[in-house]
Parts: sequence; structure tokens; C-alpha cells
Amino acid sequence: MSDLNANFKKAQQAFTAIKSKTVAEKAAFLEAMAVQIENIKSELIPTASKESNLPDGRITGELGRTLGQIRLFANLVKEGSWVEATIDHADPDRSPAPKPDIRRMLRPLGPVVVFGASNFPLAFSTAGGDTVSALAAGCPVIYKAHPAHPATSKLVAGAIRDAAQKSGMPEDIFQHLEGGISVGQEMAKHPMAKAIAFTGSYTGGKALFDTAAAREEPIPVYAEMGSVNPIFAFESKLSQHLDALATAYVGSLTLGVGQFCTNPGLIFVPESKADAFSKAVAEKIAAVSAAPMLHDGIAKTYKDRIATLKEKDKLSWVHAATASELTHGSPALARVTAADWISDDAFQEEVFGPFGILVSYKNTSQLVQIADSLKGQLTCTLWAEDDELAENVEFLALIEEKCGRLLFKGAPTGVEVGFAMQHGGPFPSTSDSRSTSVGVYAIKRFARPVAFQDMPERFLPEELKESNPLDIWRTVDGVLKK
Amino acid sequence: MSDLNANFKKAQQAFTAIKSKTVAEKAAFLEAMAVQIENIKSELIPTASKESNLPDGRITGELGRTLGQIRLFANLVKEGSWVEATIDHADPDRSPAPKPDIRRMLRPLGPVVVFGASNFPLAFSTAGGDTVSALAAGCPVIYKAHPAHPATSKLVAGAIRDAAQKSGMPEDIFQHLEGGISVGQEMAKHPMAKAIAFTGSYTGGKALFDTAAAREEPIPVYAEMGSVNPIFAFESKLSQHLDALATAYVGSLTLGVGQFCTNPGLIFVPESKADAFSKAVAEKIAAVSAAPMLHDGIAKTYKDRIATLKEKDKLSWVHAATASELTHGSPALARVTAADWISDDAFQEEVFGPFGILVSYKNTSQLVQIADSLKGQLTCTLWAEDDELAENVEFLALIEEKCGRLLFKGAPTGVEVGFAMQHGGPFPSTSDSRSTSVGVYAIKRFARPVAFQDMPERFLPEELKESNPLDIWRTVDGVLKK
Repeated sequence: MSDLNANFKKAQQAFTAIKSKTVAEKAAFLEAMAVQIENIKSELIPTASKESNLPDGRITGELGRTLGQIRLFANLVKEGSWVEATIDHADPDRSPAPKPDIRRMLRPLGPVVVFGASNFPLAFSTAGGDTVSALAAGCPVIYKAHPAHPATSKLVAGAIRDAAQKSGMPEDIFQHLEGGISVGQEMAKHPMAKAIAFTGSYTGGKALFDTAAAREEPIPVYAEMGSVNPIFAFESKLSQHLDALATAYVGSLTLGVGQFCTNPGLIFVPESKADAFSKAVAEKIAAVSAAPMLHDGIAKTYKDRIATLKEKDKLSWVHAATASELTHGSPALARVTAADWISDDAFQEEVFGPFGILVSYKNTSQLVQIADSLKGQLTCTLWAEDDELAENVEFLALIEEKCGRLLFKGAPTGVEVGFAMQHGGPFPSTSDSRSTSVGVYAIKRFARPVAFQDMPERFLPEELKESNPLDIWRTVDGVLKK
Repeated sequence: MSDLNANFKKAQQAFTAIKSKTVAEKAAFLEAMAVQIENIKSELIPTASKESNLPDGRITGELGRTLGQIRLFANLVKEGSWVEATIDHADPDRSPAPKPDIRRMLRPLGPVVVFGASNFPLAFSTAGGDTVSALAAGCPVIYKAHPAHPATSKLVAGAIRDAAQKSGMPEDIFQHLEGGISVGQEMAKHPMAKAIAFTGSYTGGKALFDTAAAREEPIPVYAEMGSVNPIFAFESKLSQHLDALATAYVGSLTLGVGQFCTNPGLIFVPESKADAFSKAVAEKIAAVSAAPMLHDGIAKTYKDRIATLKEKDKLSWVHAATASELTHGSPALARVTAADWISDDAFQEEVFGPFGILVSYKNTSQLVQIADSLKGQLTCTLWAEDDELAENVEFLALIEEKCGRLLFKGAPTGVEVGFAMQHGGPFPSTSDSRSTSVGVYAIKRFARPVAFQDMPERFLPEELKESNPLDIWRTVDGVLKK
């Protein structure tokens, strides 16, 4: 705890120093970060690949995504309008009382604690989306490395601190800590922490949420805890594209050994097509080899969870997991009727890995019951013809209440990084459905509004100065303008 | 609980019905609400005045504010851009994988539980800011009336439901419940509640926060719990305007018998001016009569809190409370040195009523220590000359971290309703510093982002249709445009 105190004091000092930096300086730091990470690419890729059991190609792609994210936030900061600058001008002649001048904008929260994820050693880890969006908001980050990829994490941490040094930022804008669950809990409890970001299991995320809520000063927790991302296949759509949809499903289910938070662990198909679809899926799954999972702990949990489900009488097995190697994840698919699925919450718990449950439903009115029972999800996917959607508007409205992203084509894996992405859904998929951990809006998690009333012009932040020196979009007397 | 179940089911049904309404229909309902409330003005004003002990003039002003708020939100809904519509167009030719079409906007959370405040029987109660911003977001409201003004609350509730009926909205868009703390707790615990808004004491707000965090599905709580709103007076400013600032301070401290969450319960003055300022303030306070408080419970708590503080040796009394009538609040001012103030957290607890503590500080470096010790506030006010601000940039940066609104002129009472207002600060002044309970941004508390991926055009919400039929501001492929 005494060491942590020192870390948080350094973070707070860095925070004070960052606050006096210009928008251009903040953006330059993020750009330098991308450059420094790219510079260590030849060492980083094999290290991350070795530590995560993920192939070089996947890691190379993930690095590209990571650098893309950093540059997206650099541009967002440079453009500057994300702060929601809002100005209500004074009216000294207003009766009965003069109207003051009020100027509001988003300001950084302070030191942010970030936890890395095992399944994205780069894009959701050390210099991942949480870290970058917090830094972009102007918050220093105290980062707890994921124990599954310590060398990768250290390499990236060094690059971030190099970038800080090269761009005139305090090095302690980013601090890299290692340790287990208890260290993480102490970080979350520290009085100087102002927000927490986490990607991982429900158990881990909920423990942080509870800790943060029990603090003397509760702080926001952005925990992305994963979900089962149901796909709802409608009869007419499925009849016309059965083989293609089976291919799409198996591709998404087994991508990256199923180790994605958007992995479609549930698929609902009409009873009339369930046998045919199930057969097609089984054939395609049989062609997918078992592959090494991120680490042995995850592989063991995957096997244990499937073993537990095997004790459920209501499940039949379309394809049982077959891997002989203990470290490997082998695809598996079980089947259950909708009525049985509704009756047991265990069937909507996430099994992290390439495992899915195919649920056969009787008719579309049963879909409404399913939607009623469904817990909060990162994504839901509807495979339906337009006229099937039109006939099921009640279901459509209900299902929207259960997810953060609603897809009508393709599969939920593959989360685009951009402006419109929403990666965060109702509890328990995330702890705060009002936020996203992917895309530009992620920056808003680490800021809060401050209003300056009758502040002398020379002391106003550049975003709020009358002449709009940054040329940002602002709401002035109720009108959005530059 | 069985009755509450019925209430929440009705709220959920109303929610489903509202979702299919157009933006124009939603705005028309809010406009009808203002009309219906205005129609009962002649009955409402004396009823509210009688139940709150607040003079007719004050209630008339508050009614104007309430109607103004409703119309502000009606216009916001009608204009439509508040939903943050964001569109990333597809790129079918992108390599290695085609880019999907993603469209994101804010969508209402669902049934919201609102608790009324005693000190604003209209503006922060039945049709107050919390109710109106939740309705504007598209959420049904289940409202718990404040027991201090039941007749006022019923009148307004009737007007809201009349407005719903007249504008084709389901009446259960607003439901009015009565009861004590246990009913409020049950409402907060109900699984169908999706958010809670509250204005009142720290005890009440924190209890709701704890309840919401302990739910199986935690939900957001927006509790505005008040604060002591410190004013920091600097030497040169105070020397030049001593009498005017004493008048301003006493005016703000005693306005409405001190029953405002922005009441300045703390004022920091330099030692060199403390005697003179204290004398000026004492004279002006002596001229203010005791007046009836909102209800006997509040008057009793006010007297009890002052009696407890009288046992603190470190406080001297510039002006002791003198009211003989048990229901009346009488202004009072105590004095303490900054070192003593820092040593005892009791000196920064809110005393609801016209009571202030004058803290004498040695020098501006002591101000930094004060800022370090200060808990989160709704507002902080700096009375300083420009050169005094320039010499104290460290203090300025620190104090901004402690509040939601920072004033440089005038006093914190009088919260403007507009676009730039921020009424919400770091804990414990509010439970969620990322939100405001006054001004247009209050609507964002009751919405969450949903992304629609490759949704067929005909099913898209009007805000996201390609042709932009509502003519709202949208971020399209990263560019803000109409």
C-alpha cells in the first residue's frame, strides 16, 4: 500500500502537469505513442504471440488495430470538439436579475486505474482502448498488467513512457504495475483513483464494481464483462441461406478459439429448421481443429464449464469437445429447446471459448418470451428477412433493450473501431451500459462537466475562450456552431 | 410490493408505447404538460405556498422556472440533435473484410424512479427537472411524492396525466406514489427500475446509492445531495469591495431561509480582513429576520446541528441563531481558523439552513492545503482580482477538481437553467459527477447508446435514416453535419 501511495502521488502530479498542456501537445503525445510502439514491432509481435498462443498473423492484425485506435484518439483530441464546449452568454440587462456568463466543458477525472485483458494482449491491454481513451481525456493511467503476458506488457509500457519523454509529457502519465488480484483490489480502493476500466470476466468485473461502490468516495467502474451474444435466426432467412449461415456461425463461434467477448454462444433457430441447421453446423465444426487457448487456466476453465453442462439432462450434444491436449480448446455445440432454455439461467452464462448452444424455438411468440428472459448482452444479431422483421416489431423493440449493438447481417465478432461503435451493453455484459469501451465515445468515460461562471477571459481554457481559437464545434446560446 | 409490481408493469407497457411515438409527438406531450400545469396555477400557487411555508412570490417565480424547464426540454426534443446520432457508412470493398454500416444513437433507459425535493415543491419535484428530463429522454417516470407537500404534488401529477391523455400518450408515462422511506427503498430495488433520480440529503441519497449498487442488476443513481459551496475571498478583492461582498454573502446565505443546495455555508477570508469582514457580515445578518422553514423537521434538524456545533471549542460565534419560534430558521455565523477547519471534517458538513462558517486563512499557500482537504462540492466561488488569480494558478487548478461549477462573480445561489449549466459535482455533493440535474444535459442521464449494424433502412429510427428526415446534427463518417 505504501508503494501504491507513491504511485498515486506521482499520477496526481502528472495530472496537474498535463492540465497545463495544450490540445496540440496532448495529441502529439498520443501520436508519439503510436510511433514508439510501431518502432518495437519486430520484438513485440513474437513476444505477444509467444505469451498469448495467438498466431503471428493475428497479433500483427491486432497491432494494426491498436495503432489505429491510438491515432483515432490523437485525431479526436486534435480536432477538439469532443469536450462538448457550451457557452451561455451573459445578459446584464435581464430582469429581475442579470444573467451571468456560463461556459461548460468536459474536464478529465484524474488518475484512472486500467486492467489489461488476456484475450487482446495489445488492443485491450497496456496501450489498448481503455488506456488510450483515458490518456486522450487527459487522465494519467495506473495500469495493472495482465499476468498472462508480462513481457509484452513491459515492452509496450516502455514505449508509452518513451513517448511521454519525447513529447514533453511527464513520464508518470503512465505507470505500469504487476501483481495479482489483491494488488488490483488495492488499486481500486485507493482514495486518489478516480475511475476504473476493466475487460475480463464477470467475476473480476463485478468484484471491482463492488469495491468501487463501497469506497468512501464511490468512483465509476467501466467493466466489460462479456456475454453470450445471441443470434436469432428466422425461418424464411434460414431456409434460403442455411448453408451460408451455418458457415458464418461456425466461423464466428470458433474464431480465435472462441476467445472473444462478442463470441456468439447462443443461436436461436426455428424448430422446423433445427435438425437441418444443426447437421450443417456439426459438419462444419468437425472440420475445425482444436487450438491452444490463451493460457492453461482458460483452457481448464473451458473444459470444466463444458463438463458441468454435460451433467444437464436437458442439453443434447450436437458436437462434443474432443481435444486431447489439456491446453487446447476444442469447439463444441449443445442443443436445447427454448422452453428448457428459459427454465435454466445456466444456459445463458458465458463459456469462454468455442462453445455454443443451439436453441430451437416453436414460433415467434416464443421469441418474445426468450427476449423477456434474456440478460443484458454486448450484442444481439437478427438473421431475418425484412418481412419477418416487420411481423415482429414487438420482439425487435424488446431485444433492443437487451443489448448495446444490434446486428442484422454477419456475426458479432469483429468489433469495428470508429465513431458509431457501441461496445457496452446492459448489465451483466458491462457494469455501465451508458458507456462504450471501443470507438471515440470511449473518451467520455473519463471526463466530467465543469461550468465556469463569469470567469475572466484570460483564465478560461482554450476550448471556451470567446474567439474559439481551436475552431471547435460549440453550443453557443443554444446553437451549435464553429 | 405487489402494488409496486403493478406500477412497474404499467410503466414498462407505457415505455413500449412511447418508443413508437415520433419526436414531434414526444415534444407535444411536454408542451401540453406546461399548458396543463399553467392552467392550474391559481390553485397550485397557494397550495404550494401553504405546504412549503414559502411566500407566494417565491412560488410564482418557481412555477415560471418549472414551466421554462419543461419548455426548454420540449424544444430540445423537437430539435432532436441531443441523441448524438452517429453514422459510419459501409465499405463493401474494404480489405481484408468489408466494413459494415453502423449507426449509433442514445435510446431511453426504461422506467425511472424519481424522488421529489422538499425545498423546491415545483422545480425539483413532481414536474421538476428530474421528471422532465427523464420524460424528454423517452422514459416513463414512477414518482415518489415528497411528504412535505402532498397536495401540491397531487395537483401537478394530475396535470401531467391530463397532458398525457390530451397528447395521445399513455397516462402511465407518469405515475404518482406516496409513502415513506421504505416505499422509496422498494421502488429503488424493483428489478424493472432502470435509473433513480433524487434531490435531498446526503443520508437519503447515499442510502439509495447503496441500494442500487447492491441490486442483482445495479442501476445508475443521480443523487444531488447538496454541499457547503465555499467562497474564497482574496485580500485585494476583499479590501476594495468589503461592504458589497458582505452584503452579497449575507444575501446568498439567508436567501429562502438558506434552504438551497447551493447555499454558501463556508467563506474563506484572509486573516488581515477577517475581523472587518466578520463585523460587516454580523451587522447585516442581524438585520435579517428569522423565517419559517419548509417544515418542522427541517427546522428542528437545523437547530440540532447548530447546537452540536456549539459544543466545538474551536468555533467562535459571530452571530448566534436567535429565533424563539421552533419552526423558524434564524441566520447564524461561526468563525474558525483555517488550521482548525482543516483538522475537523465536521466543519464541512452541510447544515441545511441560513448558517455559515467564516474561515480565516493565513496566506495563499494555506489555500492549497484547504483545497486539498475540501470534499466535492456543487460549486466553489472565487472572489479575486485578476492578478490574484494569476498568482494562484495551482490553487485554481486544484479547486476545479473539487466542484461542478466554479464562479468568479456573485454568489452560488441562483442556478441558471440553460445549456451550459452544470449542477452536479464530485462526491459527496452528488453521487455521479459525470451528470447534471439542471440544464439540457440532464437528459443524457436517462439514455444509453445503441448501435445498429446493417439495419435495413425502413426499420431504422427516424434519427438514423439516411435522408436525415429530422434535419438533426449527426456525425457522419467522422464529420459533424446536418
